[in-house]
Amino acid sequence: MSDTGARPIGVAVLGMGNVGTEVVRILTESADDIRSRVGAPVQVRGVAVRDAAKTRAGIDPALLTTDAAALVARDDVDIVVELVGGIEPARTLIRAALESGKSVITANKALMAVHAGELSEAAARHRVDLYFEAAVAGAIPVIRPLTQSLAGDSVNRVAGIVNGTTNYILSEMAETGADYHDVLAEAGRLGYAEADPTADVEGYDAAAKAAILASIAFHSRVTADDVHREGITDITPADLDAAAKFDCTVKLLAICERMTDADGAERISARVYPALIPLEHPLATVNGAFNAVVVESENAGRLMFYGQGAGGAPTAAAVMGDLVMAARNRVNGGRGPLESTYASLPIASIDEAQTRYYVSMRVADRPGVLAQVAGEFAKQGVSISAVRQEGAGEEARLIVVTHRATDRAQSETVAALEQMDSVIKVSSVLRLEGTND
Amino acid sequence: MSDTGARPIGVAVLGMGNVGTEVVRILTESADDIRSRVGAPVQVRGVAVRDAAKTRAGIDPALLTTDAAALVARDDVDIVVELVGGIEPARTLIRAALESGKSVITANKALMAVHAGELSEAAARHRVDLYFEAAVAGAIPVIRPLTQSLAGDSVNRVAGIVNGTTNYILSEMAETGADYHDVLAEAGRLGYAEADPTADVEGYDAAAKAAILASIAFHSRVTADDVHREGITDITPADLDAAAKFDCTVKLLAICERMTDADGAERISARVYPALIPLEHPLATVNGAFNAVVVESENAGRLMFYGQGAGGAPTAAAVMGDLVMAARNRVNGGRGPLESTYASLPIASIDEAQTRYYVSMRVADRPGVLAQVAGEFAKQGVSISAVRQEGAGEEARLIVVTHRATDRAQSETVAALEQMDSVIKVSSVLRLEGTND
Repeated sequence: MSDTGARPIGVAVLGMGNVGTEVVRILTESADDIRSRVGAPVQVRGVAVRDAAKTRAGIDPALLTTDAAALVARDDVDIVVELVGGIEPARTLIRAALESGKSVITANKALMAVHAGELSEAAARHRVDLYFEAAVAGAIPVIRPLTQSLAGDSVNRVAGIVNGTTNYILSEMAETGADYHDVLAEAGRLGYAEADPTADVEGYDAAAKAAILASIAFHSRVTADDVHREGITDITPADLDAAAKFDCTVKLLAICERMTDADGAERISARVYPALIPLEHPLATVNGAFNAVVVESENAGRLMFYGQGAGGAPTAAAVMGDLVMAARNRVNGGRGPLESTYASLPIASIDEAQTRYYVSMRVADRPGVLAQVAGEFAKQGVSISAVRQEGAGEEARLIVVTHRATDRAQSETVAALEQMDSVIKVSSVLRLEGTND
Repeated sequence: MSDTGARPIGVAVLGMGNVGTEVVRILTESADDIRSRVGAPVQVRGVAVRDAAKTRAGIDPALLTTDAAALVARDDVDIVVELVGGIEPARTLIRAALESGKSVITANKALMAVHAGELSEAAARHRVDLYFEAAVAGAIPVIRPLTQSLAGDSVNRVAGIVNGTTNYILSEMAETGADYHDVLAEAGRLGYAEADPTADVEGYDAAAKAAILASIAFHSRVTADDVHREGITDITPADLDAAAKFDCTVKLLAICERMTDADGAERISARVYPALIPLEHPLATVNGAFNAVVVESENAGRLMFYGQGAGGAPTAAAVMGDLVMAARNRVNGGRGPLESTYASLPIASIDEAQTRYYVSMRVADRPGVLAQVAGEFAKQGVSISAVRQEGAGEEARLIVVTHRATDRAQSETVAALEQMDSVIKVSSVLRLEGTND
């Protein structure tokens, strides 16, 4: 590919955190390679920051500006890389970029999980690229395989570990037996958890990613509000201990499923919750800050994608892949795939999802209790797969693992158990995923 | 995406084996979905077969033709899907297609491993797409992640299990302790091995894939002849047994590595051989007919891609992804990335590759033998990592595992050992991969 005389591609970088710093570094250090791959030089026109006076290693201070809107509007900017995060001003800046004919690369999952529709429409209208590989699972190529490699297949299910913070916490709890709060504090000290960890530990981050994955996997529009969400804050060492006894571990999963009703109508179930998965499941060995996504599709079968889900350089690698592709399209006159939402499948409520439950309860240790408990499951049509009882004097610990049933039937069973005289306390309820029963 | 009145995209399918049959089936059964994703109907214009009289379920006999060249030349064909395999007539048909402005999808690894250069140039000249995701690792997206997702990164290493037949054989041998020939016969009966298994068991198939992977990973032109190749026919149950004692298993690996000389000059090492890998390595648990590819790159770090590496439907899924993308480009006027060989890195010989060796030998069981053997390694500057000796009366079995050194130094050591009086026989030599020592 020769670029003799090719017009340079101008890039505006919005945000100079971990990822932005790495993107600017790579654009500088790998300028020759990138020029060869794009067919034209790729040049940083400016970097929008909050404080332009702050000294930043490896970047020409003349490039820094606090006026992001003016930077986006510059005539010599062809591609805008949005790494500010959050809804505003990111949304307005991206809209402005697209509407002035600029391609946009973003790592902003919160924004894409809510406003992908209007932004994609703007990109389509102005015939420019809007890429967001870095918004899901950091360095791991997931968006591009789903939108392109599987473009001729029918995806049935996407299940992934897409949040490194919670995966680190759960891995540490499983390994050390430590308490959630202690591990969270340690994660904060190590930089694996933010000062305010709510978005991670309550599952908001994973839910945003689930919305993005469900949208592209099922060619429909799914937003963060469509995703059923439960976090990991109630997970106890006892849960991990009990999981181990069933040859399982606990992971925070993002699950996107195509459900087919009896009449053939299809709906989407998108949900995030901590769940038991068998130790032999491919996601069970994904530990620490790593991410992995398992895709099950009609013809390709089961695929797994594994790698680093966060961090400056890995996330920057995903941004750079998008950036080089968008720049190539500028040079060659093409563009990448547009948003595809033709299927417009409706969203199923969590009640309708088919799940398995793990229920741990303290019960009175007297004859007939197991029969009463089992009777409550039967009443809701929920079939029991395994029971484990540990006597402890006046009370016993009873763990029930069920077969697949609607989440409504499962949760109504639990509600009924909580009302029973012989059940002292339902101490823990988790789903069980990754099995065929 | 609306396709009101959009001109249909015509497809010619060459070859009606397992993969071709599945491609035609998917194009028929998923016609509505594909139309929505492409923005125009995608229609099969004809299917070239060897015997047009043979009845084939699910295909209109009027579509069958034995004249592949005439089918490719038809004006209403926009995209040619080549699933014939082999060099000729595939090469001539693909060239003819590209030169008449048609995009081409191929699953032909043997062809792409040798003639990617001329075919890519023809595609570039005529501004059409040439896609070949299905040529490597079946359903697993590998080509697209390497060429697009990692387009802004620098790949250092690609190591994969890319041949299902040999992986099935080695997995079975490891699990059952059975002999190579018995497992090969069983694989033939189960349809996992061809009547003539040479291409698989001698590593030709894996070497072709290594050439393709090395070319795209390192932006250089690497052909099958550049790949050092060793097969699995000499692997014995004793090797697998010994591997297990070192907490390893044996896999046929395709390895593509960027080597940096002392003066900073870069070269490519591409090689295929059976090697020990530690049981905790991600590739160690890839069993049976599954494939997996591990990519290590500068910023993204280590990524792994896992899935079904062969079979009609999985391979067809990869073909269909390429086909939908090429069809979209027809509708939207863009095209995918071209071959990128700007780096033109030279190929290093196997002698220069840095490897670790596992050497198993029968030695005389008398004092001083270990010192003599160790002395031979030292003479070549090869450092020993582990030794295991099992006495057996007059002779002993001695296993030596080395640290990293050039393959030349390692192989010269083995040659010297074979000349020693105290070494009765060097019974097995394998490399050890997937460690940092």
